[in-house]
Amino acid sequence: MSDSNQFRVEYDSLGKIKVPADMYYGSQTQRAVDNFQISGTTLPRSFIKAQGIIKASAVFTNMELGKLTKEMGNAIIQASEEVIEGKWDNHFVVDVYQAGAGTSQNMNANEIIANRASELLGITSDKNRVHPNDHINMSQSTNDTFPAAINLSAAENITTVLLPSLLLLQREFEKKAEEFMPILKSGRTHLHDAVPIRLGQEFSGYADTIRFSYQQIEHCLDSLYEIGIGGSAIGTKMNTDSNYLPKVMEEVRRRTGLPFREPTNLFKYMQNTSAPIRVILALKELSIHLIKITSDLRLLSSGPRTGLSEISLPSVQPGSTIMPGKVNPAILEMTHMVCCQVIGYETAIATAGIAGQLEINVMMPVIANTLLHSIDIMSNALQTLATKCINGIGVNEEICTRFMESSLALVTALSPKIGYDLASQIGKQADEQNKTIKQVLQERGMLTEEFEKLLDPKGMV
Amino acid sequence: MSDSNQFRVEYDSLGKIKVPADMYYGSQTQRAVDNFQISGTTLPRSFIKAQGIIKASAVFTNMELGKLTKEMGNAIIQASEEVIEGKWDNHFVVDVYQAGAGTSQNMNANEIIANRASELLGITSDKNRVHPNDHINMSQSTNDTFPAAINLSAAENITTVLLPSLLLLQREFEKKAEEFMPILKSGRTHLHDAVPIRLGQEFSGYADTIRFSYQQIEHCLDSLYEIGIGGSAIGTKMNTDSNYLPKVMEEVRRRTGLPFREPTNLFKYMQNTSAPIRVILALKELSIHLIKITSDLRLLSSGPRTGLSEISLPSVQPGSTIMPGKVNPAILEMTHMVCCQVIGYETAIATAGIAGQLEINVMMPVIANTLLHSIDIMSNALQTLATKCINGIGVNEEICTRFMESSLALVTALSPKIGYDLASQIGKQADEQNKTIKQVLQERGMLTEEFEKLLDPKGMV
Amino acid sequence: MSDSNQFRVEYDSLGKIKVPADMYYGSQTQRAVDNFQISGTTLPRSFIKAQGIIKASAVFTNMELGKLTKEMGNAIIQASEEVIEGKWDNHFVVDVYQAGAGTSQNMNANEIIANRASELLGITSDKNRVHPNDHINMSQSTNDTFPAAINLSAAENITTVLLPSLLLLQREFEKKAEEFMPILKSGRTHLHDAVPIRLGQEFSGYADTIRFSYQQIEHCLDSLYEIGIGGSAIGTKMNTDSNYLPKVMEEVRRRTGLPFREPTNLFKYMQNTSAPIRVILALKELSIHLIKITSDLRLLSSGPRTGLSEISLPSVQPGSTIMPGKVNPAILEMTHMVCCQVIGYETAIATAGIAGQLEINVMMPVIANTLLHSIDIMSNALQTLATKCINGIGVNEEICTRFMESSLALVTALSPKIGYDLASQIGKQADEQNKTIKQVLQERGMLTEEFEKLLDPKGMV
Amino acid sequence: MSDSNQFRVEYDSLGKIKVPADMYYGSQTQRAVDNFQISGTTLPRSFIKAQGIIKASAVFTNMELGKLTKEMGNAIIQASEEVIEGKWDNHFVVDVYQAGAGTSQNMNANEIIANRASELLGITSDKNRVHPNDHINMSQSTNDTFPAAINLSAAENITTVLLPSLLLLQREFEKKAEEFMPILKSGRTHLHDAVPIRLGQEFSGYADTIRFSYQQIEHCLDSLYEIGIGGSAIGTKMNTDSNYLPKVMEEVRRRTGLPFREPTNLFKYMQNTSAPIRVILALKELSIHLIKITSDLRLLSSGPRTGLSEISLPSVQPGSTIMPGKVNPAILEMTHMVCCQVIGYETAIATAGIAGQLEINVMMPVIANTLLHSIDIMSNALQTLATKCINGIGVNEEICTRFMESSLALVTALSPKIGYDLASQIGKQADEQNKTIKQVLQERGMLTEEFEKLLDPKGMV
Repeated sequence: MSDSNQFRVEYDSLGKIKVPADMYYGSQTQRAVDNFQISGTTLPRSFIKAQGIIKASAVFTNMELGKLTKEMGNAIIQASEEVIEGKWDNHFVVDVYQAGAGTSQNMNANEIIANRASELLGITSDKNRVHPNDHINMSQSTNDTFPAAINLSAAENITTVLLPSLLLLQREFEKKAEEFMPILKSGRTHLHDAVPIRLGQEFSGYADTIRFSYQQIEHCLDSLYEIGIGGSAIGTKMNTDSNYLPKVMEEVRRRTGLPFREPTNLFKYMQNTSAPIRVILALKELSIHLIKITSDLRLLSSGPRTGLSEISLPSVQPGSTIMPGKVNPAILEMTHMVCCQVIGYETAIATAGIAGQLEINVMMPVIANTLLHSIDIMSNALQTLATKCINGIGVNEEICTRFMESSLALVTALSPKIGYDLASQIGKQADEQNKTIKQVLQERGMLTEEFEKLLDPKGMV
Repeated sequence: MSDSNQFRVEYDSLGKIKVPADMYYGSQTQRAVDNFQISGTTLPRSFIKAQGIIKASAVFTNMELGKLTKEMGNAIIQASEEVIEGKWDNHFVVDVYQAGAGTSQNMNANEIIANRASELLGITSDKNRVHPNDHINMSQSTNDTFPAAINLSAAENITTVLLPSLLLLQREFEKKAEEFMPILKSGRTHLHDAVPIRLGQEFSGYADTIRFSYQQIEHCLDSLYEIGIGGSAIGTKMNTDSNYLPKVMEEVRRRTGLPFREPTNLFKYMQNTSAPIRVILALKELSIHLIKITSDLRLLSSGPRTGLSEISLPSVQPGSTIMPGKVNPAILEMTHMVCCQVIGYETAIATAGIAGQLEINVMMPVIANTLLHSIDIMSNALQTLATKCINGIGVNEEICTRFMESSLALVTALSPKIGYDLASQIGKQADEQNKTIKQVLQERGMLTEEFEKLLDPKGMV
Repeated sequence: MSDSNQFRVEYDSLGKIKVPADMYYGSQTQRAVDNFQISGTTLPRSFIKAQGIIKASAVFTNMELGKLTKEMGNAIIQASEEVIEGKWDNHFVVDVYQAGAGTSQNMNANEIIANRASELLGITSDKNRVHPNDHINMSQSTNDTFPAAINLSAAENITTVLLPSLLLLQREFEKKAEEFMPILKSGRTHLHDAVPIRLGQEFSGYADTIRFSYQQIEHCLDSLYEIGIGGSAIGTKMNTDSNYLPKVMEEVRRRTGLPFREPTNLFKYMQNTSAPIRVILALKELSIHLIKITSDLRLLSSGPRTGLSEISLPSVQPGSTIMPGKVNPAILEMTHMVCCQVIGYETAIATAGIAGQLEINVMMPVIANTLLHSIDIMSNALQTLATKCINGIGVNEEICTRFMESSLALVTALSPKIGYDLASQIGKQADEQNKTIKQVLQERGMLTEEFEKLLDPKGMV
Repeated sequence: MSDSNQFRVEYDSLGKIKVPADMYYGSQTQRAVDNFQISGTTLPRSFIKAQGIIKASAVFTNMELGKLTKEMGNAIIQASEEVIEGKWDNHFVVDVYQAGAGTSQNMNANEIIANRASELLGITSDKNRVHPNDHINMSQSTNDTFPAAINLSAAENITTVLLPSLLLLQREFEKKAEEFMPILKSGRTHLHDAVPIRLGQEFSGYADTIRFSYQQIEHCLDSLYEIGIGGSAIGTKMNTDSNYLPKVMEEVRRRTGLPFREPTNLFKYMQNTSAPIRVILALKELSIHLIKITSDLRLLSSGPRTGLSEISLPSVQPGSTIMPGKVNPAILEMTHMVCCQVIGYETAIATAGIAGQLEINVMMPVIANTLLHSIDIMSNALQTLATKCINGIGVNEEICTRFMESSLALVTALSPKIGYDLASQIGKQADEQNKTIKQVLQERGMLTEEFEKLLDPKGMV
C-alpha cells in the first residue's frame, strides 16, 4: 500500500503535516502527538464525554442564534453526540502532558467533530468543509471550555459514582456498628490500656467520619457547578452573542441533568482552577480519615496469634508466597495505597494550582487527569472496601472480653471515689505485680460491693 | 539563698520532683519540662485562654451539679478566669513537642489552677489542697478537653481576626476593581498576547477569589463548633454526670459567644482531629490562590524599566543593599512566604492526622500549635497586604494602552468575519514583520471601516 | 463454545476458582483480578522485566545448588527469559492497587512461569506440574523479591534513560550558554531592574543546576543497588541455602550489568523502602529546579508584544483555538506539568513510606508504580524539552539592549564612588522623572568621563 | 521623659523615620519592623552569628585590599565579633516574614554594626559615621550574603548538633541490638504472624536505617559548603575587587573551620537555594524513617495488658489526667510530632523553592528560618529519643516467646519438605481449630523428629 493511502496531508498556520488517513483528527492534533510523547496516557472517557457535551451544546446554541445553518448544525450535533457516546474515543490521542491550556485537546475534539460532520454532510472538497475553529469552536475558547469540561466530568463522576460509593461504605459501617454494639472491649489510647468501649461505638465513629467526609465532598461539589462557558478567551465574552451564555448554559444543564451555572465572576473562574482544587482537597480529607480507619482495622485484626485479633476480616486471597496459610488484610492495604496516591495527587494539583498567571492557569490538563483519576480510583476502592471487607468483618468476642478484663485502666472507675492519687498507686501495683485491678483491691481489702459494681465494664460505656 | 527557698518538692505516681518555688505549676508540668527540651516554644495565648474557658466551664457545671462545694468551685473559677485573662501565661511552660495527647499541657493548666485556687482559699496544708486531677480535671479527660481547646481557640481567632482580615482584603480588591474598571489593557494567557481586558476586571477576579476562599473558611469553621467535652477519656462519658455534657456545653457557649455543640458522634470526634484538618485545608486553598494573586501583582508591577510596569505598588522600604534606589514588592513577597509556610503546615497537620490510632490521635499538640500559628500569620499577612499594598496600587495607563494596541491578539476580533485561517496568516505576518495588526490590514487593503471598528478594543471587553 | 473451553478450574488454599483457559496465570492471580478492580493499570514493562530477571537468577542458583533438576531448571529459565523479553506481558493482569506486599504480583509471575515451564516440559498432569511456590518461588519471598524488582527496574531506567536525558538537557543549556555569552542584558531581581548580566551567564546557571541535580540522582541511584534477595520473608534468610544469597546476587549482576549488592543490613532493607524514597526525593529536587528554569524561560520569552521577549522559543504548534496566530510555550508548560506530577508522586511515596510496620512496608506496589512512572515521564519530558525547545531558543538582542540601557540599577556602578545615599537619590530621581541614569547625571553635571566609563555595562559583567 | 530622649531620627531614600534611641539599628530596620508585624518571630541565633561571620570576613578582606582604613576596619571587625558572640541579639528585630531577599535582615546587621563601630571609634557626627551600606556592606549584596548565611548556619548546626545526635541514636540502637540479639520472637508482616526473628535483628535494622540517613545528611551537607559570597548582586561580582572572592572565602573558612568554597557556577547559586532544598529533603527522608521506627516501638510496647507488650519503655511521666497509673510512649510521640513538622517544613521550603525567578529566589527568609528550625527541633528530638527512651528499653522475654511459639507461620519451615500446598492446609487447620502447628502435626501423625527439629525457631533465624 502506498504512503498516500495511509496518510493525508493537512495544513495549519505552521505549514503542512501528514495525518493518518483513517483518523478523524487533523493537523493540530497531529502536531501534539508529535510534540508530546510523554506518558502514553490520554485524558479519560469522562473528560471526552464532557467535551462532547460542551460542543453539542455550543453548536445547538449557535444554531438557535442563527450563526450556523440547521443543516451544518445538526450534522455537528450528531458528530458531537457520537463523541459523547464514546464512538471516537480512539481518535482522542493527545498525551495528558501537552500544552497547558489544553488547546491540543480541544482541537482534537474540534477536528474529529469537524471531519466527522463533513462526512455526514457528504462534503469532500476542502473548500466547504466544516471548520474545526470557525464552526466547531464557534463562540468558544479552550480557555473557557477546557476547565468547564473538567468540572462537568468531575461533577458527573462524583454524583454518580463517588458519593454513592461513600454512602455504601457509611451504611456498611453503620450496620456493623449496630451488630457490634453489644460487644464490650477495652478502649486503647496511645495504644495503651484505656477504659471500656463498645466495638459498635468504635464502628459508629467510623461511619460518622465517612458521613462527615461525604458532606464535605458534597459541599465542594457545588463549586464545580460554576462553569465559565461563554466567557471566551479571557472572560470578556469576546466574539460571543449576548444571548449565547445563558442559552448554552441551559443546554448543558439539559444534557447533564446537573445544575451548572454562570460563575459569580467570570474572571475569577478564568484566573484559577478553584473548583478542582477545592474538590481534591476534600478528597485528601477523606484519604486522611480512610488511612486512619483502615489502619485501625488492620491493627484490630492483627494476628491471628501474634496480634490483637479482636476482629476478623473476610479472607480474599492467600497472603504469602513463602509462608503457607497466611491471610493478609489485602483490601485494607489496597485502600491505604489508593489514599497515598490521592494525597499525592492533591499535592500535584496544588503545585499546578499556584502556577496560574494572569488570565489563565496553564497546568490544566494535568489537573484534569489527576482529579478524574483520583475520583475514579477512590470510588473503586471505596466500593471494594465496603463489599469485600467491611461487610464481612467478624468479632472475636472472647478476645475482646479477655483484654478488657485485664486492662489496668479499669481503676479509672474508682478514681472519683478514692481519688486520682490512690487510684494511680493501685494501677501501678497491678502493673508491677502483673495482677488485675480486682486482685490488687482484694489484697488491699478494698474490694467492696460498691467497688465491684463500679468495676463492672457495662457501667462504663 | 538556699535551694529550699528556690524550689519546693512535689510528688506524683513516679516519685518526688523539685519544682521552682515561685511557679504555680506542679510535678507533672515539671516532668514535662525536663523531658521535652525541643523547640523552646509553648502553645500560644489563644490556646491557654481556651483551656481556661473549659476549666471554668467544667468547674461551674460540677458545682451546679453538686460535685464541688461553692467555696472551692468559686475559687477555681476565679483561678481559671485569671488563666483566661493571661495572668499566668508565663507559668505555662510545656514545650509544644510533648506527649501526644497533650496531657502535660492539660496538667499544666490543672496544676496552675489548683495551686492558685488553694492560695485563694488560703489552704496551705497538702491534705486539703485543691487537687489538679480530682477537682480541676473533674468530669474531664485530656482526650476530650485538649481537642476542644484547639477548636475553641481556632474558632475564636478565625471569627475575630482571620475572616475580618479576609473581608478587608476583599474590599480593597473591590475598590481597586471599581477604580480600575475604565483602564483597558491587554490580557495575557500563557504570558502571551491575548485579547483586551479591563484592569478592573482582573482585580474583580481577585476580589471574587478572596470571597470564594472566605466562604470556604466560613463553611469549615462550622466543623470547629462540634466539640467533644463531656465525652471523657474515649467518648463514653465515663465518670461524668448525665447532665454534665449539656450544661458544660451551655457554659462554654455563654463564655465564648460561639455556637459550640455536641458532635453528631462522640467517637468520631475522639478518633480524629477532623475539624482542624478541614480548616487547615481551607487555609491551604486560600494560600494557593494568594500565591497566584500576589505573583500576578509582582509581574504586573515588574520594572520599573525592565518589566511590565502596568501597575505600581506603594513603596514601603528601600529594596537593595547594593543597588541604590531599588524598591521591591516587599509586602507581596512576605505574603507569598506566609502562604508557603501555611501550605507546609497543612502537610504537617495531614501527616499528623493520618497517625491517629483507635480512640485517639496522639499528635494533637503539634496540630494545635500549627493550626493556630497558621491562622495567626495568615491574618497578619492579609491585613498587611490589604493596608500596605493593595490599597495603594496605582496604574500606568500609558503603558497599559501601549501594550494593548500592539497586541497581536487583536486580530481575534476579525476571526468571525474572515475565518480563523486568514486571521492566523495576518497575525503571523504581523509577528514576523514586526508590525501591528492594523498595519498589516492596511497593507493588504483590508482595513475597512467595519474592520477598524471591530479592532477597537473598547468593543472587545 | 462451552464454558469449559474458555475456562479451566484451579485450586488454592481458599478453594477452587475459574481461570481463563488461554492465560498462563493461575488461581492466585485470578483472585487478585477479582478483588482489585481499581485503576485498570498494571505495573509497567520494566517491572515485569525485573521480576523475570530475579526469577531466572533464582532458579539458576537453585539449580546450581542442586535444589532443582537441570531439566526443570532450564525450562523455568527459558520461561523466565520469555517474561524478561515481554512475551507474556498481557498475562500480567494484577491491578497496581493490590495487597500491599505485592504477593499477587509475585504470584502472577510465579504462575505464568510455572505453567509455561510445564508446557515447555510437556507436563500435562497436575501432579508433576512445575509449582509456582515450590519451584518458581523457591528460596524467595515476595518480601525480598518485590522490593528488589523495584530497585532493578528503577536502576535500569535511571541509568539508561533518565541520566542520559538529563545530560542531554545539560549539554543543550551549555551550548546555549556559550552561544549567548556575548549578549548583554539587564539582570532582574524581585522582577525589578538589576545590574547587567550576560544571557549566557543565565543559561550557564541553568546548565549547572541540571548538573547539580544529575549528580544527586546519580548519588541516590547507588542506594538502589542494595537489594535484599536472599533475605527471604523477613531478612533471616529462612529456607535458603547458605550459598544462595551470594550466588543469586552474582547472577543478577550478570544479567543486568549493574552492581547490585547485599544490603549493609538485611533487616533495614526489609523494614523500609528506603532507596525508592531517596530516589523520588532526588526527582523532587530536580522538579523544583525545572519548574524554576522553565518558568524563567516562559517569562523571558513572554510576548511577542506584551511581554519581555528577550528570547524566542521554537514554534511547535498553534497556540489558541480562538486567537489566531498565537504561539505558546507548549514544551515548557508540559515540562512544568510533569514536574507538578512528580512532586505529587513524591508525596504519595512519602505517605506510603511512613506506613511501614515492623518487618515490612505494605505499600510497595504503589511505590513501585509511582516511582517507575515518575522516572518515565520525567525522562520523556527532559528529552522533549532539550530537543524541541532549548536547542531552538533564539535571542532578541535589540530588546535585551534596550532593557539594559534603561535599567535604573546601572547607578549601582557609581555607588562605590559617590556613596549609596547619593546614588539612591539619583536612582530615585530617574525613576520619578522617567529618565535614564545618564540623563540625570548629565543634568546634575556629573557625567564625567570616568563615570561614563563606569556606566558601560560591559564593565559590569 | 520627652520623646526626643526615647527616639532618634534617621533618614533613608524614603525619608525620615524615628528609631528607638537605645537601639543600634537604623532606618531600614525600623521600616521593616513597621511593615512586618506578622509572626513575632525573628531569625535564630545561629543565623545572626553567620551574618556576623560574613560581615567580619568581608571587612577584613576589604581592609586587606586597602578599601578600608585599618582603624575603621578594626572597629567594624570588633562590632561584628560582638554580633557573632550574641551581644546584640535583641537588636535583631526584623520579623521572619519580611521582603523576600532578606534585605531588611542584612540591613539590620549592617546598621547595628555600623552604629556600634561608630561608637567604638568615638564618632558622633553624622558626617563621618561608619555607613551601613558603603562600609559594612562593602563588596557585598544581600543576594550573595543572605543565602551564604543560611548555608553557614545550617552547616554549623548540622556538623555540631544534628550529626552527633544522629550518631548517638544510632549507637543506642546498636547497643540494644547487641543486648537483644539472644531474644527470639515472632516476626510480623502485614501485622500478621510471620516467621521468627531476633529482637536484636529488628533493632539492628533500626540502627542501620539511622546510619543510612546519617550518610545522606552528611552527603547533602557538602552542598552547603558552596557559598556565593563575592558574587555580589547577581553573580557577576560587580563592585568587588578581583581578589575579594578568594580572600573572603579563606577568611570564612578560617572563622568557621568548615570547608566553604566558591560554587561551580555563581549564577546557579544565585538563581536557586539549591543546598537548603537538598538538606531539607534529607531531613524529610530521616523523618519518614523515624516515624516508621517510633511507630514500631509504640506498637511493640503497646499494652501493658491490651497490646503486644514485647518491649517496655522507660516511664518518663504519668500518662493520663483521668486514667490513673497510665504510662504512655511520650518520647516516641514527641519524636513523631517533630517528624510531622519537619515533613511539613520540607513542603514549605519546596513551595518557596519553586518560586525563584531569574537572578534570585525571593523566599529566602522563610527558607532560612524553616531549615534552621527543622535542624534544631530534629536534633533535640533525636537526643531526647536516644537518652530518655531507646537506651532504657527493656524486653518482656516471656511474651516474645509465647507469641513466637503460637505463630502459625512456623509451618513455613516445613514447606520445603512437604510443599506449599500441604503446609497451607496445616496452617489453615491450625487457624480454624485454634491449635498450634505442632498440635496439628501431632494429630496428623506427622510430628517426626526431623520436623520437630525443623520447627525449632532457633534454626529459623
